Amino acid sequence: MIVLTEAELRHCVALDADAVDCVEQAFLALATEAVAMPPILRLDIPKHRGEVDVKTAYIPGVEGFAIKISPGFFDNPKLGLPSLNGLMVLLSSRTGLVEALLLDNGYLTQIRTAAAGAVAARHLARADARTAAIIGAGEQARLQLEALRLVRPIDRARLWARDAAKAVATAEELSQRLGIPVAPAASVEAACAGADIIVTTTPAKSPVLKAEWLSPGQHVTAMGSDSEHKNEVDPAVFGRVVYVADSLAQTRRLGELAHAIEAGTADTDAMFAELGQVIAGKAKGRQSDADITLCDLTGTGVQDTAIATLAFRRATAAGVGQAFETTGARRV
Amino acid sequence: MIVLTEAELRHCVALDADAVDCVEQAFLALATEAVAMPPILRLDIPKHRGEVDVKTAYIPGVEGFAIKISPGFFDNPKLGLPSLNGLMVLLSSRTGLVEALLLDNGYLTQIRTAAAGAVAARHLARADARTAAIIGAGEQARLQLEALRLVRPIDRARLWARDAAKAVATAEELSQRLGIPVAPAASVEAACAGADIIVTTTPAKSPVLKAEWLSPGQHVTAMGSDSEHKNEVDPAVFGRVVYVADSLAQTRRLGELAHAIEAGTADTDAMFAELGQVIAGKAKGRQSDADITLCDLTGTGVQDTAIATLAFRRATAAGVGQAFETTGARRV
Repeated sequence: MIVLTEAELRHCVALDADAVDCVEQAFLALATEAVAMPPILRLDIPKHRGEVDVKTAYIPGVEGFAIKISPGFFDNPKLGLPSLNGLMVLLSSRTGLVEALLLDNGYLTQIRTAAAGAVAARHLARADARTAAIIGAGEQARLQLEALRLVRPIDRARLWARDAAKAVATAEELSQRLGIPVAPAASVEAACAGADIIVTTTPAKSPVLKAEWLSPGQHVTAMGSDSEHKNEVDPAVFGRVVYVADSLAQTRRLGELAHAIEAGTADTDAMFAELGQVIAGKAKGRQSDADITLCDLTGTGVQDTAIATLAFRRATAAGVGQAFETTGARRV
Repeated sequence: MIVLTEAELRHCVALDADAVDCVEQAFLALATEAVAMPPILRLDIPKHRGEVDVKTAYIPGVEGFAIKISPGFFDNPKLGLPSLNGLMVLLSSRTGLVEALLLDNGYLTQIRTAAAGAVAARHLARADARTAAIIGAGEQARLQLEALRLVRPIDRARLWARDAAKAVATAEELSQRLGIPVAPAASVEAACAGADIIVTTTPAKSPVLKAEWLSPGQHVTAMGSDSEHKNEVDPAVFGRVVYVADSLAQTRRLGELAHAIEAGTADTDAMFAELGQVIAGKAKGRQSDADITLCDLTGTGVQDTAIATLAFRRATAAGVGQAFETTGARRV
């Protein structure tokens, strides 16, 4: 068994074309293979504003499967600690033996989540999309913009965040880092006007993106909601947009779709396309330059298995990581 | 973060009075505290006869909570590998940070499972129970007998297994190890006749223990079933026995109770006592020497959190384990 630290994983895996392709393959498998992806295990510890998600998925033909443990403890910043943490355990699909512990503190989740944004844009945004609107100023705001540039000719962006000072600082930082103009926006509406791709990256509990602010040809990726109480997009967009889920079983419970069902703008059992089906050509995504597309990302176990497998392969090839002997005497 | 190997964990934790008390406290908490114990996450990989269970529970007042990953891959013996494996991750209840990785290959599960058998006997078997019948000849057969001796004056035992040669060998081994006569039995019926405590430890898919073989005063612990298709005890015992579940939510789906519900000998929503409620005096267990008691153990996340916490405390006190730096640069 190999133990890989965050520093080693950062060295092995970056947000690049390979990461995007690897996550794209994961979504494709979800639509075309006998993938086993059980419901997310969720533990809540309200006393410490803590929550833990455990995700996993088995993809036929992939040698390993990841079990990812993602804690979020939202009082941690008061203690000088990051809110998000976690690790992935990679097990052999054939024997169940632990092959690697990826002590990534959530790094691989950040990468696979941003990569999913790129996959969504590649399959749903107009090919000539140049202007991005980013809602939020956290880590995913940064990474989602970077991810879009891997798949579309983005040459300018606007960024809005609830905290205006943070929006200004993040826009400035991204301008520098990416070498394109990134302007802070005065409102979500202003950020979205004329944008080709909109990515919402907030933990909002009520919609930050109103239906009336969308215009023909736009693509929206909503990646903030991953639990029942989060909601970024106005349920009124349903009926107006081409809606695509990462996993319909999940978005019905945890995504923007859950809130549309609650609001009555989508039926409980309405069938929508999944991203993997669009990739496979088995479901329709964008049909014309005038369509508005909406991709609802809640985060899936197949992405975790895909990125963990990539990281393990790279680490093994590079000879990094520390080996542990795990088999011991079997008798108690 | 501390990494503890199986050898180190075997050194720190044994099947003893402390382990039994620690598991007893866990069941008590389940009945008296605001424990959070989500449904088990289950992944099946039929192609390799593989299955993985992930269990967890948060116990208020306990500093950490375990997330346990238990793979069972039943073609492994053909490859010279054990079927069962796994590890526990211990996280801080306050921050969600990983405190320890317990690379136990299932050892701690064996201990906490056997300890639960002792807890069940302590609260449900007659105080003068001397004769044990063990059904099965695997690791739990051995450990359950050992566990009973921690709580009841067991001075002889019978052991039955499907493989008669294995039964003879295991009985002989246990006689030697425990210093009491352990006789191989010709049948389950013969093993049970006159026994005070019966423990079933098999992966049976149809009942090995018939209702008509039970007699007044006996206690039965059925610990083999932990998934939908497993069933050790004749559903006809329901109505005749005082039934106690480790977790009613689990035994309704995964335990002997599930099969009784299916057979119509128990109602779908019938309320039964849980072991923790009996310990707390909030529900009735054995009322007389003539009662037949049945404890249905499916294995719970509270046991995992309890044993992992004990192991971590012991390891820390003894200064064993290898430290890893887990916090890295936070920016991607």
